[in-house]
Amino acid sequence: MGLPMARRLAGAFPVAVFDIAAERRALAVEHGATEAATPADAARDADVVVLAVRDQAQVDGALFGESGAAQTLKAGAVVVLTSTVGPEAARSTAAALAERGKDVRLVDAPVSGGPTRAGNGDLLIVVGAEPAALEVARPVLDRLASTLTVIGDKPGDGQALKAINQLLAGVHIAAAAEAVALARGLGLDPQTVIDSLSQGAAGSFMFADRGPRMAQAYGDEADAVEVRSRLDIFVKDMGIVTGIAKNAHVPVPLASAAEQLYLLGERAGLAARDDSSIVTVLSPRGEDR
Amino acid sequence: MGLPMARRLAGAFPVAVFDIAAERRALAVEHGATEAATPADAARDADVVVLAVRDQAQVDGALFGESGAAQTLKAGAVVVLTSTVGPEAARSTAAALAERGKDVRLVDAPVSGGPTRAGNGDLLIVVGAEPAALEVARPVLDRLASTLTVIGDKPGDGQALKAINQLLAGVHIAAAAEAVALARGLGLDPQTVIDSLSQGAAGSFMFADRGPRMAQAYGDEADAVEVRSRLDIFVKDMGIVTGIAKNAHVPVPLASAAEQLYLLGERAGLAARDDSSIVTVLSPRGEDR
Repeated sequence: MGLPMARRLAGAFPVAVFDIAAERRALAVEHGATEAATPADAARDADVVVLAVRDQAQVDGALFGESGAAQTLKAGAVVVLTSTVGPEAARSTAAALAERGKDVRLVDAPVSGGPTRAGNGDLLIVVGAEPAALEVARPVLDRLASTLTVIGDKPGDGQALKAINQLLAGVHIAAAAEAVALARGLGLDPQTVIDSLSQGAAGSFMFADRGPRMAQAYGDEADAVEVRSRLDIFVKDMGIVTGIAKNAHVPVPLASAAEQLYLLGERAGLAARDDSSIVTVLSPRGEDR
Repeated sequence: MGLPMARRLAGAFPVAVFDIAAERRALAVEHGATEAATPADAARDADVVVLAVRDQAQVDGALFGESGAAQTLKAGAVVVLTSTVGPEAARSTAAALAERGKDVRLVDAPVSGGPTRAGNGDLLIVVGAEPAALEVARPVLDRLASTLTVIGDKPGDGQALKAINQLLAGVHIAAAAEAVALARGLGLDPQTVIDSLSQGAAGSFMFADRGPRMAQAYGDEADAVEVRSRLDIFVKDMGIVTGIAKNAHVPVPLASAAEQLYLLGERAGLAARDDSSIVTVLSPRGEDR
């Protein structure tokens, strides 16, 4: 997600980029960004630092590690956290930035939509941030988002809403997989089932979007299923969901079942495959049905 | 569902009605139907017998019980089974009709949409039936359905597709309940969460439809939540789903978790409440959040 976001931002602002992969830095430079040698180098003089990383460990490394951005962040700067790391990680990151005493604030702004929409400024971004910090970040967020929802006024609120988004998305993908697997098991054509049901009371965005790729997994084009969103993203995100639900003492039996299913998918070797491939855990390819 | 369907049909065809409740027979008569004293009486001379009952036991009673319709059904008549009873029940009913030797065939045609849409001829009907039997029933089905999907050519196929519909619908309602309960647990306003997420990748028909009633369960209007679809319908339907999935050896961990949740709701006294009330099992009313 970082590269298309950097590309999109470089069309409107001066952008210095750091990525651990040199070839991705080079691709950003081709689109008008300046290359930085370290996160600290990238953050120097910046009003807004945008973080797009995988998990909390990478957040900590990019901000507080050797050559981390926190070393050079100037007073009044804001850090925009676009990753899904959970409310607790957002709050502790905000606290760690505040402890440095340089008036650097965190804008908790996890994004949804995938790389293509990131490159087009068409992301859904849900924000928890102090109004003054949000004001600094807003031009950057507006450049990236087609829909910006400010759900609360403190870091962690954006992550909380994003977690609920992922609960629904992850459960709906798993439900679509059960529907397609059961269709096969009952001798019905999966694509016909999807066409019949996806616009009615059984419909979801995920059933309409992932369903056809699940059906494709059993056809001649099975090996051509494009990886639009990796399965192991849901191993991470459903882990966040069930963790925060447990901390809040809210039972989430379906999210828990979905988490186990994604873990099974990861164990079955599907971590880097499209998340729609989870259907093959329930109904393996090559079986008669 | 039987009454609005009878009312809708009486606007186009001569209809004889039987219901175990005399006041419902009377309501149908007010809308132009003729009252019958027994199922056998209602089926006499009929080309098409429409069955709208709760479960397989009621199907057996209405067709094969004392004064059941099978006693009077004429050769060439078709029985349209609009209830959700599962593929096996549809197949055994078709076989039991065939054994009578009078050339009476079953049109397996479970419906979705609820009473209001039934009265307006706006149902989704999914059909499994021999083409010749379907031909006899088609004017009746066309009068009731805005969407008619013929998924297969034998009784049981309609039930199979309806079961997949109910798998998705039941899981999506339970997922919406988890989302609303988690929103409360995290201190977010449920209705704001629904408004933020229901049109994006987390969206489902059920989240948009049941979500607001779930949020309403915690407000001043909690006791005014209208019963549009009873919770115990999903106890029955998720039971059908997990039963046929087990018979087909297809794992459905989310549908199983949803089934348990609806059973918990029934045990909590919610059987006759709106199915959206399932959220109160996860996050009881009156708690701080």
